[in-house]
Amino acid sequence: MKKIATFLFFVFLLSIKGFSQPQEITVVSPEFLENGSVTFNILAPKAAEMKLQGSWMPDWNERIEMLKNSEGVWSVTVENLTPDYYTYSYFSNGVRLIDPHNALVIRDGRNHFSGFLLSGDESAYYEVNESNSGTLQEIWYPSASLNLERRMVVYTPPGYESSGEDYPVLYLLHGGGGDEKAWSDLGLANRILDNLIARGEAKPMLVVMTNGNPNQTSAWFNTPGYSEEADPGFLNTMGNEQFERSLVEDVIPFVERNFRVKPEREFRAVTGLSMGGWQTQRLAYHYPEVFNYYGVMSMGVIRTGAFGHEAEELIEHTKAKMNQLNELGFGLYWIACGTDDFLYDSVLHMVELLEEHDFDFIYRESSGGHTWDRWRLYLSEFAPMIFQ
Amino acid sequence: MKKIATFLFFVFLLSIKGFSQPQEITVVSPEFLENGSVTFNILAPKAAEMKLQGSWMPDWNERIEMLKNSEGVWSVTVENLTPDYYTYSYFSNGVRLIDPHNALVIRDGRNHFSGFLLSGDESAYYEVNESNSGTLQEIWYPSASLNLERRMVVYTPPGYESSGEDYPVLYLLHGGGGDEKAWSDLGLANRILDNLIARGEAKPMLVVMTNGNPNQTSAWFNTPGYSEEADPGFLNTMGNEQFERSLVEDVIPFVERNFRVKPEREFRAVTGLSMGGWQTQRLAYHYPEVFNYYGVMSMGVIRTGAFGHEAEELIEHTKAKMNQLNELGFGLYWIACGTDDFLYDSVLHMVELLEEHDFDFIYRESSGGHTWDRWRLYLSEFAPMIFQ
Repeated sequence: MKKIATFLFFVFLLSIKGFSQPQEITVVSPEFLENGSVTFNILAPKAAEMKLQGSWMPDWNERIEMLKNSEGVWSVTVENLTPDYYTYSYFSNGVRLIDPHNALVIRDGRNHFSGFLLSGDESAYYEVNESNSGTLQEIWYPSASLNLERRMVVYTPPGYESSGEDYPVLYLLHGGGGDEKAWSDLGLANRILDNLIARGEAKPMLVVMTNGNPNQTSAWFNTPGYSEEADPGFLNTMGNEQFERSLVEDVIPFVERNFRVKPEREFRAVTGLSMGGWQTQRLAYHYPEVFNYYGVMSMGVIRTGAFGHEAEELIEHTKAKMNQLNELGFGLYWIACGTDDFLYDSVLHMVELLEEHDFDFIYRESSGGHTWDRWRLYLSEFAPMIFQ
Repeated sequence: MKKIATFLFFVFLLSIKGFSQPQEITVVSPEFLENGSVTFNILAPKAAEMKLQGSWMPDWNERIEMLKNSEGVWSVTVENLTPDYYTYSYFSNGVRLIDPHNALVIRDGRNHFSGFLLSGDESAYYEVNESNSGTLQEIWYPSASLNLERRMVVYTPPGYESSGEDYPVLYLLHGGGGDEKAWSDLGLANRILDNLIARGEAKPMLVVMTNGNPNQTSAWFNTPGYSEEADPGFLNTMGNEQFERSLVEDVIPFVERNFRVKPEREFRAVTGLSMGGWQTQRLAYHYPEVFNYYGVMSMGVIRTGAFGHEAEELIEHTKAKMNQLNELGFGLYWIACGTDDFLYDSVLHMVELLEEHDFDFIYRESSGGHTWDRWRLYLSEFAPMIFQ
């Protein structure tokens, strides 16, 4: 009897499926070949042209031509990709498309891209570790200093729910144009921590991913009818220090009240990329008593030679502020940047300033630019160095 | 000094912005006009045609022509939309596009659509309630019965973290093709509960959203190199009763061990749509001692007249099973369906069977079809009726 009902049910459901996805040819995209080769496909018989752009291309304006076969499937193969987490788009007649054959779509700010994980040694930390996965929470908290209710994403390590232990906390800051989902969606912070912790390479810790734009309650898409005119984004607020204040006055007390964490300086770390690296520097200047570990990714001190004596004042200001942190002592001040990063010179300038001041930091220079492949790598290197 | 640094920083960041989004014309889409009118726009000067398809259209194959202005922006205005949460796509030369001007993209199974919330009385429960927002957790648990580590989404109500109270639990099941994220992404279950609880219309409760496909650990996109060939989806597993068993044997004990919930039958409810409505019926048959409240959305008993005596056996089987639940007693058995639903006849058939058996249920018939606007509505009606 059961089999009859099940069979009938399948007939019904097959009809739904056929109705919602009228498609004659089955196209798989991307296709993973050997030696890091990946083929991208899209069924578009009537399109006049199709091009590919991917996050592995150094020039963001590069487009690779795709070729159409007799069934109307456009394809191109890219060779020798390093195992990593990539995003890509198609372009047809100047319009950007996601890959309709790929279920993985990744948001970067206001834009969406198709994505894939190319498995291998270099991307081992980015795999889902099903048997050692922590919990990701989207949680709202009152920000008294900003007079807003705001959303953050909190990672708790595997076993948090039942261990009864207290944990250290890493505060993880995104860049300009990002929001509280950037480090989990693009940065795979939860997967990286899962794998590091499972291997015993990082201590179990909470990771708190806030929204670094102090005029936002949460990622834009929660706002019906959002437009850039209504919310000009991070450019209006990045330098106003409101975020840093809200992190210290609102976020940390909320986390320490609502999660089982160790509420002392030696168990707090902060790191961020680009705008978040700028905010990390300012937290080191203005709240040296709060954090013990600092990671500055892809951000330095802007070289202000063109502004004459103001540049000297800025440098003196920086020195004086870092001196406070030096006197207080700290666990780690780590700076990381890629040699192709458009902010590379600003990082070299910061390194020079800190060396002049005999400040105790570690500078980690990598290849690459101002991109998420670098920031995932940096997080996988920074997390093992803290709370040890 | 601060102002100089800030200014320089803006210059840098503006240059990033210009680099990543080379676009001369600012296009806002969708645009909300008066009286439920919405204009959809897309900049595509070189496209030969552009069409719109939206979730408000009864015929899923309908396409509305868009018109191009002199700047290359294609537009069309749709009038008199009821306030709701909608998805839409563009089509250009047969290829489906998301709206590149809209930051909200919603996944439905393997497909992605642009989305918007049209605000108004009918969609009041779907708004983000910033000052009364519960927490959404993506949490992994061991499923011994399936021999898998699996992911579920758990909603805890506002105040859960600090209240010290124990809560009732609603187990909320998705339909065929969906996964553990469907009810939050498409169904807005967390927002609906936030608003119901804030108004005092529903009791504070946990909502547990599982993955109803017993061959999956989690939504497909966590699997690198996923293809339909590697994972044929729900059609192979829907009738095999493994999901229902894993819910009772694995999920409920995990939830009751790791969250502050009331672990008695009178504080457990289950509801689901389509495939999840089928699973809800089976839970009522096979585990009547576990749940006190049942909601069956858009799913009935398949009319099996063509199969002769087997149909009679199925009916007797159903009656016998429902009789067990009747004898045990229960809080609510609620059935909801739209008159345009392709499973409407199956629901009428179930209603007839249950009436013949003098079974105590409530049948709620609505307008509409087999679509998310109905299931959001049904959840907003079901949640206030349970745990009262």
